[in-house]
Amino acid sequence: MKNILDTRLWHGGDYNPEQWLDVPEVLEEDIRLMKQANINCVSLGIFSWAEYEPKEGEFYFEWLDKIINRLYENKIYTILATPTGALPIWMQVKYPEVRQMQANRIRNLPGNRHNFCYSSPIMREKMRIINEQVAKHYKDHPAIIAWHISNEYGNNGNDSSCHCPECQKAFRSWLKNKYGTIEALNAAWWTKFWSHTYQDWEMIESPAPHGESMLHGLKIDWKRFVSDNIQDFCKEEIKVIRKYSELPTTTNLMGFFGNIDYFKLQDKIDFVSVDAYPSWHEEKEEINVAVETAAIYSLTRSLKRKPFLLMENTPTVTNWKKNNITKRKGMHQLSAMQAIAHGSNSIQYFQWRQSRGSYEKFHGAVIEHQGGEKSRSFKEVQSVGACLKDISDLIVHTCNKSEVAIVFDWENWWALDEAAALKEDKEYVETVLMHFKYFWEKGINIDFIDMDSQYMKDYKLIIAPVNYMYRGDYIEKVREYVHNGGNYVTTYWSGIVDSHDLCYLNERPLEDILGFHVDEINLLSNHQKVTFNYKGKQYLVRSLCELLSEVTANTLGWFENDCYEGYPAITQNQYGTGSCYYFAVQPEYEFLYDFYEDLLNKLGLRCDISHQLPKGVTVALREDLGEKYYFIQNFNDYKVQVALDKPIKKMPSHTLVSDSLNLEKYETVIVTI
Amino acid sequence: MKNILDTRLWHGGDYNPEQWLDVPEVLEEDIRLMKQANINCVSLGIFSWAEYEPKEGEFYFEWLDKIINRLYENKIYTILATPTGALPIWMQVKYPEVRQMQANRIRNLPGNRHNFCYSSPIMREKMRIINEQVAKHYKDHPAIIAWHISNEYGNNGNDSSCHCPECQKAFRSWLKNKYGTIEALNAAWWTKFWSHTYQDWEMIESPAPHGESMLHGLKIDWKRFVSDNIQDFCKEEIKVIRKYSELPTTTNLMGFFGNIDYFKLQDKIDFVSVDAYPSWHEEKEEINVAVETAAIYSLTRSLKRKPFLLMENTPTVTNWKKNNITKRKGMHQLSAMQAIAHGSNSIQYFQWRQSRGSYEKFHGAVIEHQGGEKSRSFKEVQSVGACLKDISDLIVHTCNKSEVAIVFDWENWWALDEAAALKEDKEYVETVLMHFKYFWEKGINIDFIDMDSQYMKDYKLIIAPVNYMYRGDYIEKVREYVHNGGNYVTTYWSGIVDSHDLCYLNERPLEDILGFHVDEINLLSNHQKVTFNYKGKQYLVRSLCELLSEVTANTLGWFENDCYEGYPAITQNQYGTGSCYYFAVQPEYEFLYDFYEDLLNKLGLRCDISHQLPKGVTVALREDLGEKYYFIQNFNDYKVQVALDKPIKKMPSHTLVSDSLNLEKYETVIVTI
Amino acid sequence: MKNILDTRLWHGGDYNPEQWLDVPEVLEEDIRLMKQANINCVSLGIFSWAEYEPKEGEFYFEWLDKIINRLYENKIYTILATPTGALPIWMQVKYPEVRQMQANRIRNLPGNRHNFCYSSPIMREKMRIINEQVAKHYKDHPAIIAWHISNEYGNNGNDSSCHCPECQKAFRSWLKNKYGTIEALNAAWWTKFWSHTYQDWEMIESPAPHGESMLHGLKIDWKRFVSDNIQDFCKEEIKVIRKYSELPTTTNLMGFFGNIDYFKLQDKIDFVSVDAYPSWHEEKEEINVAVETAAIYSLTRSLKRKPFLLMENTPTVTNWKKNNITKRKGMHQLSAMQAIAHGSNSIQYFQWRQSRGSYEKFHGAVIEHQGGEKSRSFKEVQSVGACLKDISDLIVHTCNKSEVAIVFDWENWWALDEAAALKEDKEYVETVLMHFKYFWEKGINIDFIDMDSQYMKDYKLIIAPVNYMYRGDYIEKVREYVHNGGNYVTTYWSGIVDSHDLCYLNERPLEDILGFHVDEINLLSNHQKVTFNYKGKQYLVRSLCELLSEVTANTLGWFENDCYEGYPAITQNQYGTGSCYYFAVQPEYEFLYDFYEDLLNKLGLRCDISHQLPKGVTVALREDLGEKYYFIQNFNDYKVQVALDKPIKKMPSHTLVSDSLNLEKYETVIVTI
Repeated sequence: MKNILDTRLWHGGDYNPEQWLDVPEVLEEDIRLMKQANINCVSLGIFSWAEYEPKEGEFYFEWLDKIINRLYENKIYTILATPTGALPIWMQVKYPEVRQMQANRIRNLPGNRHNFCYSSPIMREKMRIINEQVAKHYKDHPAIIAWHISNEYGNNGNDSSCHCPECQKAFRSWLKNKYGTIEALNAAWWTKFWSHTYQDWEMIESPAPHGESMLHGLKIDWKRFVSDNIQDFCKEEIKVIRKYSELPTTTNLMGFFGNIDYFKLQDKIDFVSVDAYPSWHEEKEEINVAVETAAIYSLTRSLKRKPFLLMENTPTVTNWKKNNITKRKGMHQLSAMQAIAHGSNSIQYFQWRQSRGSYEKFHGAVIEHQGGEKSRSFKEVQSVGACLKDISDLIVHTCNKSEVAIVFDWENWWALDEAAALKEDKEYVETVLMHFKYFWEKGINIDFIDMDSQYMKDYKLIIAPVNYMYRGDYIEKVREYVHNGGNYVTTYWSGIVDSHDLCYLNERPLEDILGFHVDEINLLSNHQKVTFNYKGKQYLVRSLCELLSEVTANTLGWFENDCYEGYPAITQNQYGTGSCYYFAVQPEYEFLYDFYEDLLNKLGLRCDISHQLPKGVTVALREDLGEKYYFIQNFNDYKVQVALDKPIKKMPSHTLVSDSLNLEKYETVIVTI
Repeated sequence: MKNILDTRLWHGGDYNPEQWLDVPEVLEEDIRLMKQANINCVSLGIFSWAEYEPKEGEFYFEWLDKIINRLYENKIYTILATPTGALPIWMQVKYPEVRQMQANRIRNLPGNRHNFCYSSPIMREKMRIINEQVAKHYKDHPAIIAWHISNEYGNNGNDSSCHCPECQKAFRSWLKNKYGTIEALNAAWWTKFWSHTYQDWEMIESPAPHGESMLHGLKIDWKRFVSDNIQDFCKEEIKVIRKYSELPTTTNLMGFFGNIDYFKLQDKIDFVSVDAYPSWHEEKEEINVAVETAAIYSLTRSLKRKPFLLMENTPTVTNWKKNNITKRKGMHQLSAMQAIAHGSNSIQYFQWRQSRGSYEKFHGAVIEHQGGEKSRSFKEVQSVGACLKDISDLIVHTCNKSEVAIVFDWENWWALDEAAALKEDKEYVETVLMHFKYFWEKGINIDFIDMDSQYMKDYKLIIAPVNYMYRGDYIEKVREYVHNGGNYVTTYWSGIVDSHDLCYLNERPLEDILGFHVDEINLLSNHQKVTFNYKGKQYLVRSLCELLSEVTANTLGWFENDCYEGYPAITQNQYGTGSCYYFAVQPEYEFLYDFYEDLLNKLGLRCDISHQLPKGVTVALREDLGEKYYFIQNFNDYKVQVALDKPIKKMPSHTLVSDSLNLEKYETVIVTI
Repeated sequence: MKNILDTRLWHGGDYNPEQWLDVPEVLEEDIRLMKQANINCVSLGIFSWAEYEPKEGEFYFEWLDKIINRLYENKIYTILATPTGALPIWMQVKYPEVRQMQANRIRNLPGNRHNFCYSSPIMREKMRIINEQVAKHYKDHPAIIAWHISNEYGNNGNDSSCHCPECQKAFRSWLKNKYGTIEALNAAWWTKFWSHTYQDWEMIESPAPHGESMLHGLKIDWKRFVSDNIQDFCKEEIKVIRKYSELPTTTNLMGFFGNIDYFKLQDKIDFVSVDAYPSWHEEKEEINVAVETAAIYSLTRSLKRKPFLLMENTPTVTNWKKNNITKRKGMHQLSAMQAIAHGSNSIQYFQWRQSRGSYEKFHGAVIEHQGGEKSRSFKEVQSVGACLKDISDLIVHTCNKSEVAIVFDWENWWALDEAAALKEDKEYVETVLMHFKYFWEKGINIDFIDMDSQYMKDYKLIIAPVNYMYRGDYIEKVREYVHNGGNYVTTYWSGIVDSHDLCYLNERPLEDILGFHVDEINLLSNHQKVTFNYKGKQYLVRSLCELLSEVTANTLGWFENDCYEGYPAITQNQYGTGSCYYFAVQPEYEFLYDFYEDLLNKLGLRCDISHQLPKGVTVALREDLGEKYYFIQNFNDYKVQVALDKPIKKMPSHTLVSDSLNLEKYETVIVTI
């Protein structure tokens, strides 16, 4: 199915005309300004349930028909949402069971948003009715290009879960389905500990602050269930749409969002989209924020290994952070191009126009309370729109490819976070980002995979930081990958538990291909300085050290002091035609940089543009059938010069540049070779 | 009505003899010590409900009769309280509905104090019965000089509100009364946002941690309702008293207390009183505490533009702060005189005698567990009493007057605090105090007004910091004030919303008289240093900057760096015969000092005593019909010399001083010219 | 009754074979490894209720019989637990009332452990049934050497209390029993304050966050009740055991655990045991941790003035702290010997073997997931076992004796913590430890007593820091103790309240023997530096100063500045043939060191081994009928030399050492003279 979605880069955003129905001149003004701002697509209906169905069973779409038509007349397409992101008050009042119950077993009152139980039969019924009404009404409208299912699933400010009796029931069914017998569950959860043996499924309750909070098997399964249950709701939403429409569906994800396994969610939808709100300018240098944001886009792209849509970002400022700092001049262009560089085919804003009242009235928008087209916001958006139009044909069919992948796995994250050991914060995402950072600094594309991935063989190098839990067929896949020539980097605190969070006994899986046995893992105290040596250079341990024994691997780095002195810190082991690298230490970033520099040299992986990019400059590559477009971006607030390894051609201008490329503050240049 | 209240300065405090009824020698000793300490007035009955009515419907006053009589025989007057500050346990047990329900919808258990629902019909009935009993019994007693209505309304340690079903009902009535139709409410609250449209009044619930927390219209109206409801309860209390007694009524306020709009409360009572517990000695210098305390007294005085009573202060120490630091020698005299200097006609203590048990047993008192008349506390109180007696006739009829006012508005405070934008802490009170500080340092009286004030024309200068919300007829009054020659200083983040917390669109009110349009307001990040220049001197921005355009005003100060460079930071605009000053920046104090120094010179406003007071020294002026008494106070713990602009006469001694005045550590001198 | 318990030092720990019943080879391996590790005793059945009674009323012991027999065949004894530490899920589901209700009046859900109501008749009945089954079944088993009653009573992560209706009932009975009449209770609690008078016992509710929280009498009595109620439950557990078995009973205590008065609990059990998890290596030096741990052991020993068992410690690491740092090489030996040195007759581990799943799987154990006998943990445990075997006959009959005692009193702790005055943290335990530290540094044994102690006369010196509450016959005992020649050191903020937390009036008890009157106590602000002088040396005040008057005592130290200048800071007063010392100041440790150095010289108290031990080295003495064994321990991670005052003989080797003794890093040497 060749969809209109894939035919251009999109520019637009969330549009809430229902707030302005009594001010028709505002709506007309919107059309005029959208055209001026190079908008070609808006998202509608996200929070419109109360407008569609102001009273139970009475539906009104005329107001929206007019708007969609008027937009379409002006060549602005619509991504239409199912309106489950926020429930009408009448529904929350009449049917208390549709509201979430928190872990303390207190039912939420009506209000806020995302406040619904994913298990509630009434909620599901109400969802089916409204989705059916919307789908039926709009199924043939030529303006609609895709379905936006609900909104930011799980973003209710707590752990995304509902603990109501319906959810307890659904959880028990889910468990029955998983384990078959209560004995199997007891074994998996190791319930003999503290006399926790369950005699009956009905005895099981979700974790609670005033109930069970120490049974890890239960807690991790609860997280799996919550993630699955939300996905099931999403599937049900789509099922209704599918009765009427074959248009592609998506739901807007949120990057490193802890409560839903996005690798699993991705196959419920047709294309992936993401909301991103990086905290530019919070730090003196933008590098860490740029790295994290690039990682969010790379993760999003990796889910389907295809371009995605940036569904929400702010043209200027947020209103919900502790400190809400406005993007400085030029930053919006840079950050928009960053999304495109890493695989987005759109720049969509939250929000087109600031509302006059309530919670998000001060969130950034293209059209602000004051100023309209005179505002800086409007002008910078307009300029991004012009740029997207320029490069659309060039870029829209390309995508990022990579020879390197990082294993990032939601279940591993959950298990790590729960683990009562070492220290509270296991820093999983931080650690993953620290590895990612090297590749960003060197301008090398990198993908994310999880332990279920069937694509390991596609990569020259796979990096697996803190693989605490080995699950599924991961162990076998790693073994095969390395045996067949793959390069595998992994770290301390890996291979500790199986998918039930039960510890491996005696020997850990993969010890044979890593080439040692782990004796101990220790947390350093704050005053303890331990160093290790790699190729003659000294590096600081952050806080964790392992002691290895029976080492048959090559030792590349040694601990230098304390009881660790002389023990291997970094090892390499040949297995089949591949290699395993291991860090028996939580290193500082400087070591990662030096280590990957060596390894990538060895593997012949490098950025085509320049071997040594200036600090704060990165390159991302989108390609298709031999066409390669490099996005070179300067995240510094000063100009820099990039020494080019070969001559390049700026696009779409086709200007030739050899030797060196000048980049202004916050500038993005697209080039081909 | 010329009341005895106005005939002298009062000295005394909270007296709880019910705690000592079984130790009659303590009560006799109290009389002896009170006389010795120059006490002429005590507050009685504040927490006596259980003693008055130990069983439902059985009333006992003999115990108090004896005490009031014995005091009166010794020329000690009584301010008699209605006892609603703390409910008898039997009542809380028998009638659960009288107890407050917190926002989590859990009813409080019996206990503590201030634990009652202001809406409960039973509570109101019980209040009427006990107040009637008390009023009837004491209406003709010559010892009683005033009614002390309840105690520190709203001081229940949370947000002063009760969320019980009766309060929900009362809130809905209040809303119906305000909006008339549910459509009007929906429009005012901008409920189309997130599908929040209410179809029915009954759907409305007060804000809750597990319910609505993002609908600002609801939240601000809830704060208004809570404030109004408490005032309504107060009015009902007074109504009962008024059936029997024409004596003046008051209730003890708490300065910058966020939950009740004291400008509205003041007209329910006959005179204003306040409790003040400054944290002396917490900082190395006393200036900031002295400024805040002076502001509390000035605010209290401004409510009725008349002298007030200091109803509670500690002679020595508190027991409920994180750190409870005892007043050092001399500080009690200084702080007592500070209250008089700013408009108090009394120094009343909490408490006369420390209780032996329970929560407040370690709170400072005139009579401590150990020591009685030998304690430092007693001696310092005695000396304050002697001083009050000396100056009573001179001072009691005078009051502070001012040509400068600061706009301090409770509704603006609420709206600002709720606003989801910029950063969490909007620092409203801190900002107001920073402006106030200059006037304190220069010895110039200053009043507070709110946006409802009808007295704007009385002032040469009105300062309106962070007027986020414009409400009522404020806009018109400001326009008229300036047009007629007034001087108006206002700042960034003003005129953003109307009284419904709905943003003004396109143009903000008063932009015409200010002479510019505001394009953006930005929060600086922590590492960002931005400066501005005013009259050749450089000042640091604290954290907020605005960008102005279409500037027709005179620019008095410019930003110096970053994207702000060259933009106006400080402006002045002529309108009619008056002037508007605007700070497009959140400045450091040093700028405020320099700015007001220039402005006051221009306006010819200055302290008569000295143009340049030493640091830590201030002057306050009370006057009446040409008589002027200046309170010169040294808040330093060392002696200072004040260069006098003209000769003065110390009072009541009539000693002449010319050239310079020596002030000892913590000394207060009263002078006339 | 000469029990096998007293015949040797024990080595072993918590053993949870029920987790491995389906892996019989693990159980066989356990036997083999225990023998190798010199284990002679395990604790069984602590969390086995669900295994004993998987369905209500069906009991299974065969599984445990086999294990106990197999152990016994291998000369490994069993301490058998009553299994109330964790309830079976079926029981928590079927009988909600057995679960605790928190102070917010919400009943816990099933789960975790320690989750039972001590008052519940059903819980008590279920306990009686299971204890009876266990006792009856094992009463004659020769392997069993003692009963371990429940587990860490009160360790449920909150304040150990249950607030359910049964507990309210029990609390009211307890109060009725204590006070007899409601009038007496009202007087004791000073309820006239804030109209809190109770008319009826039924009106009394335990303290609550949403109820009474300011009535100190209630709060302290609630703490007493909770402590008593737990003890009553313990007594009931033992009563059942006693029907069948005369073996000694214990329950594992937790050192400075705030919620149970261990001085009272001790007489419910036959011998005392303790769990200790010191945070070695958290600080750069081990001294403070060593001091606290030594104090925990000394307190435990002082409860019955007899040797105790160390019932739990970790061979390596914990898993429940914020930072879990592994014991470094040698530290386990040192810390095990520390326990023996201060009176333990055992080193028992939590836990023998790490569980595979759930909360404690990463807690340190003798047998870890990886490694078994090859692990460092195993080897260090083995070596401790060998050492214990070597010294068992020498040491087992000895105990520590002391001529110095510190008053540490749970009720005083509770009252101090509740007191609303000065500052939040009253630092009671910290202060006690600061005094204790001197004696640790000088190698002098020290006991703890509480205010009920009948042993004051046994001590040459009694130290009573911050005796805020005087209770029982303490005042008379102190007077008699000093009169008869005792030396009594006490401090600021002592003698403030009686056992009802009612303040003493006018004069404080013991002022006559201390020789002064206290006028004021003041908290210093952070910026205030006050010093005092003692014997020509200057010391800093930490944060509290008292002002004394009517001083007839000798002044040993004076304040030097501020309003305190010239006032006595340290006094000494002769009374009868004894002496009272008083600190009117909260001093820094350096003063305590110098003061006690003088005082102990005067009293002729000193360590026999060396007058001046190197920093980080301590000595503890166990003795019996003239045999004296000194444990000299080096807590430094470097070697030191101890200058000996007389020649010594190393034990059990009988090696003579004169002049100086070399101690390796972390070394313990046992010597006799």
